[in-house]
Amino acid sequence: MRAVQVVEFGRPAVVAEVPEPALKGPDDVIVRIAGAGICRTDLHIVQGGLKQAFSQRLPLTPGHENAGWVEAVGADVSHLAVGDPVIVHPAVTCGFCDGCRRGTDMHCAAWRFPGVDGWAGGYAERMLTTARALVKLEPGTDPTPLAPFADAGLTAMHAVRRLAPFAGVGATVVCLGLGGVGQIAVQLLKILTPASVVVVEPDADRARIAHGLGADGVVTLPAEQAVDEVLEVTGGRGAQAVLDLVGEGSVPEQAMRMLAKGAVYSIVGYGGGLRIEHLDMINRELTILGNQIGTHTELTELMALVAAGRVALATETFPLRDAAEAMAAVAAGRVGGRAVLVP
Amino acid sequence: MRAVQVVEFGRPAVVAEVPEPALKGPDDVIVRIAGAGICRTDLHIVQGGLKQAFSQRLPLTPGHENAGWVEAVGADVSHLAVGDPVIVHPAVTCGFCDGCRRGTDMHCAAWRFPGVDGWAGGYAERMLTTARALVKLEPGTDPTPLAPFADAGLTAMHAVRRLAPFAGVGATVVCLGLGGVGQIAVQLLKILTPASVVVVEPDADRARIAHGLGADGVVTLPAEQAVDEVLEVTGGRGAQAVLDLVGEGSVPEQAMRMLAKGAVYSIVGYGGGLRIEHLDMINRELTILGNQIGTHTELTELMALVAAGRVALATETFPLRDAAEAMAAVAAGRVGGRAVLVP
Amino acid sequence: MRAVQVVEFGRPAVVAEVPEPALKGPDDVIVRIAGAGICRTDLHIVQGGLKQAFSQRLPLTPGHENAGWVEAVGADVSHLAVGDPVIVHPAVTCGFCDGCRRGTDMHCAAWRFPGVDGWAGGYAERMLTTARALVKLEPGTDPTPLAPFADAGLTAMHAVRRLAPFAGVGATVVCLGLGGVGQIAVQLLKILTPASVVVVEPDADRARIAHGLGADGVVTLPAEQAVDEVLEVTGGRGAQAVLDLVGEGSVPEQAMRMLAKGAVYSIVGYGGGLRIEHLDMINRELTILGNQIGTHTELTELMALVAAGRVALATETFPLRDAAEAMAAVAAGRVGGRAVLVP
Amino acid sequence: MRAVQVVEFGRPAVVAEVPEPALKGPDDVIVRIAGAGICRTDLHIVQGGLKQAFSQRLPLTPGHENAGWVEAVGADVSHLAVGDPVIVHPAVTCGFCDGCRRGTDMHCAAWRFPGVDGWAGGYAERMLTTARALVKLEPGTDPTPLAPFADAGLTAMHAVRRLAPFAGVGATVVCLGLGGVGQIAVQLLKILTPASVVVVEPDADRARIAHGLGADGVVTLPAEQAVDEVLEVTGGRGAQAVLDLVGEGSVPEQAMRMLAKGAVYSIVGYGGGLRIEHLDMINRELTILGNQIGTHTELTELMALVAAGRVALATETFPLRDAAEAMAAVAAGRVGGRAVLVP
Repeated sequence: MRAVQVVEFGRPAVVAEVPEPALKGPDDVIVRIAGAGICRTDLHIVQGGLKQAFSQRLPLTPGHENAGWVEAVGADVSHLAVGDPVIVHPAVTCGFCDGCRRGTDMHCAAWRFPGVDGWAGGYAERMLTTARALVKLEPGTDPTPLAPFADAGLTAMHAVRRLAPFAGVGATVVCLGLGGVGQIAVQLLKILTPASVVVVEPDADRARIAHGLGADGVVTLPAEQAVDEVLEVTGGRGAQAVLDLVGEGSVPEQAMRMLAKGAVYSIVGYGGGLRIEHLDMINRELTILGNQIGTHTELTELMALVAAGRVALATETFPLRDAAEAMAAVAAGRVGGRAVLVP
Repeated sequence: MRAVQVVEFGRPAVVAEVPEPALKGPDDVIVRIAGAGICRTDLHIVQGGLKQAFSQRLPLTPGHENAGWVEAVGADVSHLAVGDPVIVHPAVTCGFCDGCRRGTDMHCAAWRFPGVDGWAGGYAERMLTTARALVKLEPGTDPTPLAPFADAGLTAMHAVRRLAPFAGVGATVVCLGLGGVGQIAVQLLKILTPASVVVVEPDADRARIAHGLGADGVVTLPAEQAVDEVLEVTGGRGAQAVLDLVGEGSVPEQAMRMLAKGAVYSIVGYGGGLRIEHLDMINRELTILGNQIGTHTELTELMALVAAGRVALATETFPLRDAAEAMAAVAAGRVGGRAVLVP
Repeated sequence: MRAVQVVEFGRPAVVAEVPEPALKGPDDVIVRIAGAGICRTDLHIVQGGLKQAFSQRLPLTPGHENAGWVEAVGADVSHLAVGDPVIVHPAVTCGFCDGCRRGTDMHCAAWRFPGVDGWAGGYAERMLTTARALVKLEPGTDPTPLAPFADAGLTAMHAVRRLAPFAGVGATVVCLGLGGVGQIAVQLLKILTPASVVVVEPDADRARIAHGLGADGVVTLPAEQAVDEVLEVTGGRGAQAVLDLVGEGSVPEQAMRMLAKGAVYSIVGYGGGLRIEHLDMINRELTILGNQIGTHTELTELMALVAAGRVALATETFPLRDAAEAMAAVAAGRVGGRAVLVP
Repeated sequence: MRAVQVVEFGRPAVVAEVPEPALKGPDDVIVRIAGAGICRTDLHIVQGGLKQAFSQRLPLTPGHENAGWVEAVGADVSHLAVGDPVIVHPAVTCGFCDGCRRGTDMHCAAWRFPGVDGWAGGYAERMLTTARALVKLEPGTDPTPLAPFADAGLTAMHAVRRLAPFAGVGATVVCLGLGGVGQIAVQLLKILTPASVVVVEPDADRARIAHGLGADGVVTLPAEQAVDEVLEVTGGRGAQAVLDLVGEGSVPEQAMRMLAKGAVYSIVGYGGGLRIEHLDMINRELTILGNQIGTHTELTELMALVAAGRVALATETFPLRDAAEAMAAVAAGRVGGRAVLVP
């Protein structure tokens, strides 16, 4: 079958013929890919930015935002049938460790990360995963445009749920950045919390859609320059939560300046860091949360909200053979919605 | 009356004759001081370290860990009577703002901090506070040795309660430092959580008492050098919570290295800071909590535990006139338990 | 001044000239009434139904859903000024007990209940309350139509917040009855939870407005006969929460039959009772919650939602002098929205 | 192999030769039984009391409190090895439904109940279960005396965890009954909460051991007659939680009379029922919780506490062939600790 492969870090990925994936264990499932979302993490991978963190060897098939149809199931899989439309949770988990038994899938002691840690991902015609990673979609659903929800959407869902205790009536949540994760986060914040949501997004096109997604306010400035406006719209108090989808440059530092007493700084974007001062953490009694993807249950719930028409995301599809061009377009910011590769 | 006064930053505090405090409002209360704890914050104050943070002007009467007896009450105070033994919550709060109505006293929008922000503290024969700041003690209680619970104890109570969700069965909580706050924290961790408690304390005398307080393990090393031992006692996983009572030098950085996936770094000690990396916060899904003193309810509960004999703290008393010498002894680490000034 | 008085149980209330209320303590406040909501509890009071529960003596001035303007304040009240529009929390609380300090006002050990327990209520030109009972409204707000939020609204807010943990994505909440409390509850359920809301209301006029309030489904049947339809709309599983605003006859028993495994039966309506079977409580792992009015913070939050236009309630005003007629109209179900007496 | 069988409801169970269990699916596990606890539910089963609730057909092998060693594993089981000591969670669950993915095993939509619903239980030499039901014990552990923890212990763990939010500092938890569940519950209440624990137990022998288990108070009266004493030891306020391990006769009604305002009535014992009055549920703002066994994670945690020596239970062993006599002894109250059948 055809698959996109990173063959050398720093050079564009190529399309190559690779062996078909095969069922190995009784819980395995082969998914025929309908769509594979292009995530900024994939651009990092091609550049070699995650080489060490995930001990990557080449060649490597990216793709951790996948959706498609069940193509084959192992002997022990009875709740999924060939042809079922599914979305693929990014993590393959063991099902028996403490993390799995508590329902916190990302804390599985033995988790694998197809598309990232060497397990072949979904930039391909088919991929191998296991029954535990799949969420069945309503019969007849087209999985293609849902692919980006597998990671971008799930990450938004998880981060919003964790900051929700800070986002009560009268609270303001600031969302730094309105890319794919941000667009889903804004919709979820309005569904899951009664808080006021203020989007900070310098791109005029993106900012324009913020109100349509439910945002109560939009600051059309780079996050680095938005502190004063955030303080102004919160009556000088600051926000009860800042969801940082940028996470690099001076944004983290500025995000901290936007916080009210007792507030939370919620980290999703990465690439950078932050110096915190203990006296400030104490005097303002702040909380900082790192967020890692999300649980299977959260993906199931997110799919229910999407099926009910309460959460949506604009996508643009590209043929799998044009993966390199599509990734370049994403890198250059030329894709309006979220890019999805279609085999 | 006599009171200790800071008359010049950087020079020892002096004992001086000052005007008696007077009731102003109907909710005011004059407390006759039985004991005033010497806290490291008081040493910072004398050195000028909190001059800007609290806009301090001199002369200033320190003392924010106070206990004594009700000496006089305003017209509207009916639940306290002259002679009642009381401990004094560090904050004077308004009672009407959002923070006060939710029971989160430290989030009062108009809180005052006697002994720190210019309102005369308890290094004196008597002090002015308000009815909302007082917790009535059991009749016949000697308030003197309880004074340090007003801040050191309350801070431990608040921080332990906030990290408790991370401290389940099988979890390990590491306590960095076994001074007054640490000694109370260890006892509270054993009462309020089922977790295993490991104390990191280089001082041999202090380390010796750790087991008596309920600690399950003791690492007699400076916090800066204890990472390897903490990893070893946790089977390589790291701790689910690190309570940092040091908060300066390289301790915060080392504390982060002690954390398991999904763990919390809880900040009480201050003076320093920490550089966090966003990718690490995400990949380990960490939480960082700043803790500011505690609520009135938490002080009430702490006093119930003390009255029941479940929490105790060794104290050493000094006459008020020897305040400067007592503070010097605290600074030099020559006081075994917690130092208390007695008028 | 004029006030409505119950002079004999079982006979209509009368309008009489009574002494003006006077400030007694420094935290007291006199409120000039703009509107006083007529609640079914007031009908019970006139009939003598709460005589024993609240040790009532006659004559008694009803009215526990009050809003108006500050007319006079005690010496210690500084955060309220004469002329401020306010809504009056139903409970007068002490501010110092454990319940008050935790922010759970209804658990005040010494709470008073103006309009119910003998303290003169708001069916009058003016009433005495205390500063702790008041929530300041935005300048310029007309308090009149807000009066019913003081109890009907607050009770809905409190009950919805307590059942919210059961009302996640994909859950169904059934609301039995769409009177004033129900209409506010439906709006709050849609703001505070992502659940699907199904209203059970036999009255066609009321049922008609359910969708406009945000209900996802309406069953136009008496609650006693709605079990089958509720099971049908939940795919046979039952509801994750049933909010019972009727609470008498066979409704509680039928409400229990509507519950899914792990669900909650939330009690607001009263008058009746229920026989529970322990084996059923265990096998379905059910929760039952009684709800008593709500906290000051909840009333503040509710007023913020009303001011933001997110929660509304239709009201019909009656002159104070026609109180008996208005109460008769309410008893007969002839009032479309909620009835409010205006002095 | 030999197994105990119920061949006719109302007559003593008999020992018979039955076919060996066989692995069917790749996740199946055969456990060689070390011990099978006799639970009162087993007595109910023999009498036919659960015939309808679980659609039972005869013959039926009881035994849902099982511990032993792994004897054989299916092809897909890699985290358990032949010879591993294990305790058997009472439920066989699917691993894929919403309940399983959230970690709430008892809410599995397709759960099976070996020993109760027709799936052969552990009153036998060997039993079939699945990998998801097993908790591995420390190497070298003797599983025999741990058997009763599988249900009696797990039920106590689950119920205590759910009532813990009501059992803060200064709260009183009343435990009605000090059989096996009660003895474990008292120990867990002291480990997991800071509350005061009062045991109500009429049997003098049992009452005598209460203090050794950590109880703060003991009332040696039948639960039906203990209301006055409970009110007295709580200063007239009542208990913040009553854990009812009796659940029949007039005990539920008396349990409700023991509750403080805002308290919880927690149901574990069954057989009876209760009439609640809505006005009382509201005026005291009560919560009622049904509890169904517990989660796999809770059983893992409980085993950690047992291994650490923090929770223990006296047991008395009987040979499997004497099952009928052992059950009669349990029914007659002649077994001091918990009875365990040993093949």
